[in-house]
Amino acid sequence: MVTQKPSCVVLGGGGFIGTNLCRRLSASGHRVRAFGRRRLFPDDLRDIDWIEGDFTDTAATCAAIESFDVVYHLVHATMPQAADLDMIGDVQKNVVPTLALLDHCRKAGVKRVVFSSSGGTIYGKAAQIPTPETAPTDPICAYGISKLAIEKYLALFRHLHGLDFRVLRITNPYGPYQVALKNQGVIAALIARALREEPVEIWGDGSVVRDFVFVEDVVDALVVAANDTGCERVFNIGSGQGRSLRDIIAAIERQMGRKLDLRWKPGRPLDVPVSVVAVSRAAETLGWVPRTGFETGLERTIAWAKATLS
Amino acid sequence: MVTQKPSCVVLGGGGFIGTNLCRRLSASGHRVRAFGRRRLFPDDLRDIDWIEGDFTDTAATCAAIESFDVVYHLVHATMPQAADLDMIGDVQKNVVPTLALLDHCRKAGVKRVVFSSSGGTIYGKAAQIPTPETAPTDPICAYGISKLAIEKYLALFRHLHGLDFRVLRITNPYGPYQVALKNQGVIAALIARALREEPVEIWGDGSVVRDFVFVEDVVDALVVAANDTGCERVFNIGSGQGRSLRDIIAAIERQMGRKLDLRWKPGRPLDVPVSVVAVSRAAETLGWVPRTGFETGLERTIAWAKATLS
Repeated sequence: MVTQKPSCVVLGGGGFIGTNLCRRLSASGHRVRAFGRRRLFPDDLRDIDWIEGDFTDTAATCAAIESFDVVYHLVHATMPQAADLDMIGDVQKNVVPTLALLDHCRKAGVKRVVFSSSGGTIYGKAAQIPTPETAPTDPICAYGISKLAIEKYLALFRHLHGLDFRVLRITNPYGPYQVALKNQGVIAALIARALREEPVEIWGDGSVVRDFVFVEDVVDALVVAANDTGCERVFNIGSGQGRSLRDIIAAIERQMGRKLDLRWKPGRPLDVPVSVVAVSRAAETLGWVPRTGFETGLERTIAWAKATLS
Repeated sequence: MVTQKPSCVVLGGGGFIGTNLCRRLSASGHRVRAFGRRRLFPDDLRDIDWIEGDFTDTAATCAAIESFDVVYHLVHATMPQAADLDMIGDVQKNVVPTLALLDHCRKAGVKRVVFSSSGGTIYGKAAQIPTPETAPTDPICAYGISKLAIEKYLALFRHLHGLDFRVLRITNPYGPYQVALKNQGVIAALIARALREEPVEIWGDGSVVRDFVFVEDVVDALVVAANDTGCERVFNIGSGQGRSLRDIIAAIERQMGRKLDLRWKPGRPLDVPVSVVAVSRAAETLGWVPRTGFETGLERTIAWAKATLS
């Protein structure tokens, strides 16, 4: 796309994936700015240009992206469970400000928007496992519907105004800088509770299968998505492999050498039984593959948690 | 669904399709109420319980649906061209009030919501013509995206709360009670201008192909959709046949025995070149088929226009 490294602004740059992405972009010589409500780990972003603001504050968001080549849109202001309880709030906090953002991107001459969509919710109860990007998109949670709507608006802005974009449908990311907030990030939650010797609530019977992808692999994909010149614009980003929650629990107990104190709760209607995505399109088009094996990723995550949270 | 005829409230009941539907439901013995901003033809709805209100006024809409079995949601507060110019307004006027409506429907014990979606915009530039319901949904206009989002929320309300629904993806309806407002309804516009001997603006070169369906056939589908007990919930409702705008112009000129005064304008980016839907699912599941041939439908439409507009 450009020979010089593109300048990047990361909306949601203080969050889990955002912190990892900003550090990588900065280390590899990009001009980087992070924008968001808060930094989970301010010390680890101390070298990054930081603008504090709310994504629903259109003026603040638009000011933050001015003069940047690539806009990473990693914000989702609501969590899956909360979105189902307040669908209008979910639309107002995510879809509406994204429309304002896209309109400003085209006016500001942004070269590309890279959006983090949801590989785990956008397909709903998929008939095909692993699920390719061409599968029907029938979310069974409001969070997935607003992600889907934003994907469609991205395509529309390209059609109407030539604003380029890439969508990464990321599955269940885990790794350093993930904290267990508001029921997202089961691996982070399990490790943190194990370290603190606290009980953990688990929804369902542990049989749900998820596609856990290490955050460094997600960052690899975000970086290549900014520079990709292929014709595809929507990519699944996952490990391509399913692991049940019981497997995850067993692996964490094994690596940490202790038993987790589990409290089983009834399953939630927004949880699909199986979510595993096919990642061959990203391999073929972006040259991206998930490089980190699960045991290795888990080891690094536990090491980070021990060093940071203990 | 019920042995007694279900009581029906028609949101958007004063509009083109709504007027036709209310008259049919009333004539066949249903308890009917119409709700909307205005009645295009108040005299023709004089026997129908009418409540004037704006769909974005949640309290008014919710009050109107109380105690009805079936809610027909025929409202779309924005026209395709306007929606592209104000996508946030389109979301605020259509998606957000629909979410409030659905929440009230489940609380009020509504048995079914029947929603008029858009067969002409929801698929975008379809690879498969005629386009089946299973085709990818990639709208190239904001109007199509909000229709799609509403379809997804309907499925979600059923999943979470058991609220039943049917979606009819209606193509280009034409017939009595259609008036040429804000660039919708090309057949109505052509006939009205011909009667008034006024010039007509045509976007593009007349090669665009559309699936025109007679409104009485649409009403047939809306009526059976309220009672259907099958497993499918999304149906294309069209003629299943494509006609170019040039063909339409020629047919009108032939039937009216006069030449139209056409003013050709550049094509619009929201117009897909071809839109024709496959209607076999509706035939198999609903037992619905489009009964009215194009020449017959056009004849009735012209007769109505002559009697009403002259």
